[in-house]
Amino acid sequence: MSARAINGQRLYAALAALGELGAYTDERTGLVGVNRLALTAADGEGRRHVVAAMRAAGLTVTIDRIGNVYARRPGRDDGARPVMIGSHIDSVATAGRFDGCLGVLGGLEVLRTLDEAGLTTRRPLVVGFFTEEEGARFGTDMLGSAVATGRIALEDAWAIRDGAGLSVHDELERIGFIGDADPVLPAPHAYVECHIEQGPTLRAAGLELGVVTGVQGICWHALEILGKSAHAGTTPMALRADAGVAAARINVLLRDMVASGSYGADLRATMGVITPYPGLVNVVPGRATVSVDLRTPDDAALERAEADVVRAYAEIAAREHVQITHRRTARTPYVPFDQQVQALIADAASARGLSHQRIISGAGHDAQELSRLCKTAMIFVPGEYDGISHNPRELSTLAQCENGVNVLCDVVQALAEEPGP
Amino acid sequence: MSARAINGQRLYAALAALGELGAYTDERTGLVGVNRLALTAADGEGRRHVVAAMRAAGLTVTIDRIGNVYARRPGRDDGARPVMIGSHIDSVATAGRFDGCLGVLGGLEVLRTLDEAGLTTRRPLVVGFFTEEEGARFGTDMLGSAVATGRIALEDAWAIRDGAGLSVHDELERIGFIGDADPVLPAPHAYVECHIEQGPTLRAAGLELGVVTGVQGICWHALEILGKSAHAGTTPMALRADAGVAAARINVLLRDMVASGSYGADLRATMGVITPYPGLVNVVPGRATVSVDLRTPDDAALERAEADVVRAYAEIAAREHVQITHRRTARTPYVPFDQQVQALIADAASARGLSHQRIISGAGHDAQELSRLCKTAMIFVPGEYDGISHNPRELSTLAQCENGVNVLCDVVQALAEEPGP
Repeated sequence: MSARAINGQRLYAALAALGELGAYTDERTGLVGVNRLALTAADGEGRRHVVAAMRAAGLTVTIDRIGNVYARRPGRDDGARPVMIGSHIDSVATAGRFDGCLGVLGGLEVLRTLDEAGLTTRRPLVVGFFTEEEGARFGTDMLGSAVATGRIALEDAWAIRDGAGLSVHDELERIGFIGDADPVLPAPHAYVECHIEQGPTLRAAGLELGVVTGVQGICWHALEILGKSAHAGTTPMALRADAGVAAARINVLLRDMVASGSYGADLRATMGVITPYPGLVNVVPGRATVSVDLRTPDDAALERAEADVVRAYAEIAAREHVQITHRRTARTPYVPFDQQVQALIADAASARGLSHQRIISGAGHDAQELSRLCKTAMIFVPGEYDGISHNPRELSTLAQCENGVNVLCDVVQALAEEPGP
Repeated sequence: MSARAINGQRLYAALAALGELGAYTDERTGLVGVNRLALTAADGEGRRHVVAAMRAAGLTVTIDRIGNVYARRPGRDDGARPVMIGSHIDSVATAGRFDGCLGVLGGLEVLRTLDEAGLTTRRPLVVGFFTEEEGARFGTDMLGSAVATGRIALEDAWAIRDGAGLSVHDELERIGFIGDADPVLPAPHAYVECHIEQGPTLRAAGLELGVVTGVQGICWHALEILGKSAHAGTTPMALRADAGVAAARINVLLRDMVASGSYGADLRATMGVITPYPGLVNVVPGRATVSVDLRTPDDAALERAEADVVRAYAEIAAREHVQITHRRTARTPYVPFDQQVQALIADAASARGLSHQRIISGAGHDAQELSRLCKTAMIFVPGEYDGISHNPRELSTLAQCENGVNVLCDVVQALAEEPGP
């Protein structure tokens, strides 16, 4: 016997309630978005809200020293390794209410559904959320889950600073989320994450669900370009060292690299941050901070693309008489997800009559970190408006969210009955 | 008989005192700069400080409805048209203490020198400073002097808003500088402005003074680029409308235009503002605001360059699937200065044994507006460190400032004895 249907209305209301914490109104569009950058006061509010909901559901809450939060529901065989459901509740500065939150509140909804059905699974269940998944504040994404899996040492994570010079450690302390628990996580039995696609593919194909096969490789660089600030009217062009022009040449180069086809058809390259100083109409920018984001599921192509872009930094620096230094702020290889968990997801979707297909994730997720510890897969739900995300317009409908979390519920129950330690 | 020497120490101390209002410490370099963006609280402080100094010097102060300030010293023939000395005290956000201030405080020093010598000139003398010369806050440079000469209507100037949506009118009111006087200025007899060069030419040539022949033509565009914000990891390159890439292509184009030589050897082109939204590492910029600054003394070349850049906006918009709209925020033709006043400056410099040459101004100045009303010219003093300006390192030495204001004093006295209405 299994619990067949989660409560979609309750789930959607929970998403709405969490979305009010850190809410802001976009000046240009009038749309209401979410700004819950990691470890800000708004993130603290969101965290306390979710912890309260976990406790109200009768769960035992543990907080570790990097601020990851775990809520545990006992199993019939309570010494067996738990099945973990998770995601994150931090956001980019201009977010919607679904990215990450669907996986966390969806997990809570699964546990509530089991409670109402009077079901206790063999294995304990854990719903978790991880610190700074976005990397939008401290520059390193999947920070909390990387510490949980031992890829990043706690002390190194604590020492990372945001643009204003504030450290992860001090900001965790300020919002009251440095817990007592050892952040290195004992291996769960399995990890499942339900997430919005954040892209146009499922919606364009008219599909109700995506079975995620893995996460493409990601490489981030933070660049500091140092030129010479000068008056735009009086400084001869030959004497300039314009950090903005150097940034522009790198941005155009990224497009050319993609268009060349030399890195396969799947390379994606983006310059999202471009900040010239002083940023005034009549001053040649003397300095610029810039980000580069490279992604592809082809590890060899990503390696070549990174090497080539680093070589190009040096060439452009020489050409524009500037200095360019880069710091690698993220680098993850292609991460394939577990075939058996993928099959469970596909089977559950089919049993519910939901149309679905295999899909690779373009974005990084905590699941790719957890896949180092245990068998792991993800469920994608489609997004409206071309799947726009990291934007106030981000939207998955109640039915889309309900489908994803129903399948999550099925898969978690199946995994939690599996035998073994 | 004429007053021979101004008090350089007193002038330099006055520059230092005004430089403390709006002072800030640059985080990276530790240098102390000035941020007195027009009509901010710091600008208000600076204005009150200079007005107090004018009154302390026994001058009659008039403030007009765009916030221009004039201090008048009577002449022997007090109905004759005055000789005006002027400049501005507003600054860019990352300024030094010389740009503009030297002309205003140098003017006051000239009047003090005449007082000490017991001299009254035939014509009255006026020292003025004009509102928002920089254009760094409200986007239109020489705003106050353009209203004074009737080029911009008062109501239009009042309605201009800064990036935060605050209007010139409301900000003038807030700092208490909407005066009673009609801003349209009766023609003076002559206008002379002493200013730092803001470029490397005089210093590199080892010269003590520049006789400014005119101001090159200037064209500013404020661009709004509208693309589509999207997730950097999940959005296929072909579906992107990246406002940052469009900005980069325009920036590279500006360089190519200069390098082509098609617009003469003197075209200067700069993109100083590049602000992509949301400006996050993993989000394709959906919007960007950008500035374009074109300058050359060749009016025909400037006209062609502007037409070509506007055509390029459309081509790049089509190529990158974005919309680009531009607003012309400044457009001034080449302004030649008066030959007779230039000769007076050159003669005074020679009489004092100061090395000098004719030089064209790369930057815009209030003098180019005043030249519509009366005979006008400018005196440039060299700047250290390649003449860097709009930067905390901006520096003219005491001797450089003293030389410029001594010549200003000679020229003003000569002009003030000229016959006629």
